[in-house]
Amino acid sequence: MKLQFTLFNFFQKLLFLFFCFFGIGESTTAQEDYKLWLQYYPIENVNLVNTYTSQIKGITAFGESQTIQIAQKELQLGLQSMLSSRINIEKNSDSKGLIVIGSISNLDDNLKQQLASQITSINNEGYIISSTSNNKKLLVITAKTDIGVLYGVYHFLRMIQTNQSIDNLAIIDSPKINVRVLNHWDNLNGSVERGYAGASLWNWQKLPDFIDQRYIDYARANASIGINGTVLNNVNANALILTPLYLEKVKALADAFRPYGIKVYLTARFSAPIEIGKLKTADPYDPAVQQWWKDKASEIYKQIPDFGGFLVKANSEGQPGPQNYGRNHVDGANMLADALAPFGGIVMWRAFVYSEHDADDRAKQAYSEFVPYDGKFRDNVILQVKNGAIDFQPREPFHPMFGAMPKTPLMMEFQITQEYLGFSTHLVYLPKLYQEVLEADTYSKGKGSTVAKIIEGSLDQHKLTGIAGVANIGNDLNWTGHPFAQANWYGFGRLAWNPSLDSETIANEWLRMTFSNNPNFVSPVLKMMLDSREAVVNYMTPLGLHHIMDTGHHYGPGPWVSDLSRPEWNPVYYHKADNNGIGFDRSSTGSNATAQYAPEVAKQYNNVATCPEINLLWFHHLPWDYKLKNGETLWNGLALKYQEGVNQVTTMQTTWEKMKSYVDENRFKEVQMLLHIQQKEAKWWRDACLLYFQQFSGKELPKGVEKPVHSLEYFKSLKFPFAPGNN
Amino acid sequence: MKLQFTLFNFFQKLLFLFFCFFGIGESTTAQEDYKLWLQYYPIENVNLVNTYTSQIKGITAFGESQTIQIAQKELQLGLQSMLSSRINIEKNSDSKGLIVIGSISNLDDNLKQQLASQITSINNEGYIISSTSNNKKLLVITAKTDIGVLYGVYHFLRMIQTNQSIDNLAIIDSPKINVRVLNHWDNLNGSVERGYAGASLWNWQKLPDFIDQRYIDYARANASIGINGTVLNNVNANALILTPLYLEKVKALADAFRPYGIKVYLTARFSAPIEIGKLKTADPYDPAVQQWWKDKASEIYKQIPDFGGFLVKANSEGQPGPQNYGRNHVDGANMLADALAPFGGIVMWRAFVYSEHDADDRAKQAYSEFVPYDGKFRDNVILQVKNGAIDFQPREPFHPMFGAMPKTPLMMEFQITQEYLGFSTHLVYLPKLYQEVLEADTYSKGKGSTVAKIIEGSLDQHKLTGIAGVANIGNDLNWTGHPFAQANWYGFGRLAWNPSLDSETIANEWLRMTFSNNPNFVSPVLKMMLDSREAVVNYMTPLGLHHIMDTGHHYGPGPWVSDLSRPEWNPVYYHKADNNGIGFDRSSTGSNATAQYAPEVAKQYNNVATCPEINLLWFHHLPWDYKLKNGETLWNGLALKYQEGVNQVTTMQTTWEKMKSYVDENRFKEVQMLLHIQQKEAKWWRDACLLYFQQFSGKELPKGVEKPVHSLEYFKSLKFPFAPGNN
Repeated sequence: MKLQFTLFNFFQKLLFLFFCFFGIGESTTAQEDYKLWLQYYPIENVNLVNTYTSQIKGITAFGESQTIQIAQKELQLGLQSMLSSRINIEKNSDSKGLIVIGSISNLDDNLKQQLASQITSINNEGYIISSTSNNKKLLVITAKTDIGVLYGVYHFLRMIQTNQSIDNLAIIDSPKINVRVLNHWDNLNGSVERGYAGASLWNWQKLPDFIDQRYIDYARANASIGINGTVLNNVNANALILTPLYLEKVKALADAFRPYGIKVYLTARFSAPIEIGKLKTADPYDPAVQQWWKDKASEIYKQIPDFGGFLVKANSEGQPGPQNYGRNHVDGANMLADALAPFGGIVMWRAFVYSEHDADDRAKQAYSEFVPYDGKFRDNVILQVKNGAIDFQPREPFHPMFGAMPKTPLMMEFQITQEYLGFSTHLVYLPKLYQEVLEADTYSKGKGSTVAKIIEGSLDQHKLTGIAGVANIGNDLNWTGHPFAQANWYGFGRLAWNPSLDSETIANEWLRMTFSNNPNFVSPVLKMMLDSREAVVNYMTPLGLHHIMDTGHHYGPGPWVSDLSRPEWNPVYYHKADNNGIGFDRSSTGSNATAQYAPEVAKQYNNVATCPEINLLWFHHLPWDYKLKNGETLWNGLALKYQEGVNQVTTMQTTWEKMKSYVDENRFKEVQMLLHIQQKEAKWWRDACLLYFQQFSGKELPKGVEKPVHSLEYFKSLKFPFAPGNN
Repeated sequence: MKLQFTLFNFFQKLLFLFFCFFGIGESTTAQEDYKLWLQYYPIENVNLVNTYTSQIKGITAFGESQTIQIAQKELQLGLQSMLSSRINIEKNSDSKGLIVIGSISNLDDNLKQQLASQITSINNEGYIISSTSNNKKLLVITAKTDIGVLYGVYHFLRMIQTNQSIDNLAIIDSPKINVRVLNHWDNLNGSVERGYAGASLWNWQKLPDFIDQRYIDYARANASIGINGTVLNNVNANALILTPLYLEKVKALADAFRPYGIKVYLTARFSAPIEIGKLKTADPYDPAVQQWWKDKASEIYKQIPDFGGFLVKANSEGQPGPQNYGRNHVDGANMLADALAPFGGIVMWRAFVYSEHDADDRAKQAYSEFVPYDGKFRDNVILQVKNGAIDFQPREPFHPMFGAMPKTPLMMEFQITQEYLGFSTHLVYLPKLYQEVLEADTYSKGKGSTVAKIIEGSLDQHKLTGIAGVANIGNDLNWTGHPFAQANWYGFGRLAWNPSLDSETIANEWLRMTFSNNPNFVSPVLKMMLDSREAVVNYMTPLGLHHIMDTGHHYGPGPWVSDLSRPEWNPVYYHKADNNGIGFDRSSTGSNATAQYAPEVAKQYNNVATCPEINLLWFHHLPWDYKLKNGETLWNGLALKYQEGVNQVTTMQTTWEKMKSYVDENRFKEVQMLLHIQQKEAKWWRDACLLYFQQFSGKELPKGVEKPVHSLEYFKSLKFPFAPGNN
């Protein structure tokens, strides 16, 4: 009797503690989504828990480095949380069912021999996850380096998070790209250009002596998806970042990030020798300037021995550069490259240039300017090229520079922050966009010459390879402003590691790690994510339209804007709507931008009949009554696409409403509110654009398209003086 | 055997879950301090838990309002977390040992009668916590309003958090001040003037449709300490906040805050009728202007029926005001008051004025300008007066306006953000400063006419009473940048509720609620907090020095600054150091500011022999060899005070190093790093100020004062272009 009673009490307490542990008691604080995809939720499937528990008896770590300690701690934290039971740390690997982690050189000879052959097939960041054949049934996570081991640990934890089997594992994996970096457009005053998730993470005021735990959590999150570098400051750079006052702070961040395998890079303002060096010029031919950069580089490397290098935006949108001195991009990039070379640093030179003095189609200018220089850059220079030729639009055809410079390493610049895709308010799953670009075939070496192969370096045998994502991270509690924007950070990292990954696989992983493994949640929400990118294209810029957002802040539609000083800053420059039709003729009858692509691609884009309709108005100016493949006129088709976009958001709302029981209260409400705003803004885009274009088409809205409730004048009158990210 | 085994497993799981629950598994995320003083840690003392558990059998709530639901949820959340057991919600109050909550009108007749007499002794926000005499042993938390009940619930939870007995409770409490508001100096672009904890909490971009959980948590934290209003925007106001676009957003915040008893106020830019009203003037005598404000008020109240009113900074530091039109402060304040009166709104008119056209001592100008208007303001106008006559210095004598305007309600303006006290980097417990001011005796109606009695309205029988704190809150994870800065927010709220509270009592509460009840932690850290304010005075501005910080950003020392356009902006104006001595002669031989105080106070300050040494150089210019009470010369005494300040910070560090075992890892490290910075900066202040003043004293540093390691030129050369809070 007494005993039963005790048991009963235990039950009670146990239930209660579970109840607390699952965070129900926490519903008054908004902290769930701070944890990103590293929630490590206790696994609900009891059988699965028992299986895992029977297979995992403890952890043995070989090696002393901070990185190995982090790997061990993470493994223990994750497993204990997911299996709701203690995981012990063992000194040696004698007992059965242990997870053994450590770089190959630190493993015991027995294990070394077993893995000797496999280890040769990975690179320095790769890893092996292997179940041993012997009766000990050990599970070994090893690599050539401790960082490789950490990556392997995160892979293993991801398998448990997504409830995969860990029987007889023989996983061999390496990243396909060397430089996998985030670009932070963070200003020294704490603001973030095109940032929609609060202020900059970097608290320059409190650095170097205060290391915010958030810096560690940032590094940890990046390491968990294989990101290995970060450019701390805005490409529109302030030279002060290169002064001793700031370098001391940068060093502190580099020290904090190092154990997580993350190198620090800085943007270099080309005119820094004048602004902080007190020189009269920044001419790359001037020996004093060259020496100044050499000295600056050695000053940096004295403090940060593994400093990654410089990212440079030169002679672009008013930034200074070599052309200010009659030199060219090669002169500028190579000078910086020579300064960094002795220390192993690289220069990431941005190809995002277009000139107010060049009357040619803006989409052609980067190609025209850089392609002639193919092969002229130093070995430690890599050109950073945006995915499309304009500027991070909801959809662009792949940038013609990809495939056009075989003798020069090109790195991809994707934008993770949603400058043109609804800020942090719209749910848009970007890996779908990234995949579309990476799979695009440039035909530069015949069929199958995908963009992915070019940036992987496999197509043109480049050793230096890279990919950059413009971060969507700020100091908001949930990092990215929108809970689902975390998936874009996650997805970028996963694709940077392996550009051949499928965006659906990535979304599936992310949902299970971030929310739940319950199929009743995963499958509908997965569909919602996968459809979301096409939705934003439809309600903002369907059929190849682009750059028709409002000016400066880029918030909302502004197809009517035509009064900006530079023609190519005006939306009217891009849609060219008139009574005869709409679209930018980039075919041979127009700007002939199509000619910048390989013949096979050029031919397809050039001919309106073969040009994919998703890019139709990007390449062609067509009459309003042009017949689309579905038989609709261009005007009707355009209007119906806008409506379809709005409908897709409505569907997203319907889907989410059904998910209440699978998600914590805070995130459910957050997404619910954000989808509501997204729908309002989708209608805003549809109505404003259609009312504006209707002036030229002179046609009624087709059946099925809702009538606007406001006038065009109303939409034109909207002003947003403090829209975020606009500095 | 089998049974034992099961039991053993239960033990294991139980221990593990406790271990998780106590957050040890969470050490990789910095979220502990997001919870502020509402941690609700499980009580460690098992006997105490049993006592509480035997006394608390459940909760019964009477009433349907959101506020009551919040009170019930909070009570359940807090008790469950602290007692680690389920607390049930009961429908009625029949069973024994229940906590009954609800406003008096909603209680059953039996309870109504029992409490009838007590209820008359509280005001509308007060509450009663009473154990019933009958055998049911109920614990009743009631009030005249549901908000009062919520305040009572937080009081009760605080008792449990601080491990107090709840036997035979008969608590009757009411706030002594009506308007208890935070002033947010938040700009519409998301920056916070003098804010050192990240960006503004208010995400204007996503409002009104996105209600960040953080808004709720903010309201909750404020309600828990009795704050009942918030001024959302900067006193250096932007008129756009009064446009429909923003009022819609303000309404959304007001709706979110209302259930927590928090009213929303806005700062009104005096020139708004011109800037957004398209009028030619903002002259308060102009009928069109008067009408514009009347219309604006009714527009606001249509959306926010309980809108609190306007806070106005007029004709101060370049802000527009009635004087631009040859009118005075009464004209301006009364015009706005008339517009708000029909709706019950108030005007908080700031007295922080000093003019570039007035050559008189800046410390005298607010008094000179406002005191003549005593009794001329409308009933719904209250003057907001800073605690001192200059500007939130580490120490100032109380503002002479307190006591000088008996016919006019005055409200206190304290600064919670540490503009002049080390930003969010220095640990400074401000309630010690607040208490010093509140206890100061103005002698306006004879001995005992304390500042507290004046702002409580008890001295001059004012119905309208208020207190404002300039918020130190931003969107940092821990709200205030420094974990201990949370205590300043907390302490302000507690003193706003009851200005007679002792700052030591408040610090003791806060420590127990925020960290631990363990006396080995509480008593040393309590001492550290209580000493911290005198420390900052010592290492920044000892013996009555003031306003000698560097220019603009106010970060670090700048006693040498003398080149600013307005004389009273220069530190040299305030310390007046020369070869003859140092200090501002405000006695009858000087600016005669002492004459602005009541005779008893004036006499004391005026005479160097009776003037408290803590204010010595505020009121007197004295020779370097002036003898202090301790026998030291002024120069030596000054130097030794600076050294003492540094030593006090060292002692704080020593204390904190011993606290590791009582605090979670993150907060321990945070405070450790911040104290390290504080010590560096304390030395910076000491060395820079002493080197500068030494030029005039021409004397050696006394024994016991460390020699500076840098030169005066070095300190002068330091520049901080991006110091936070400086917009």
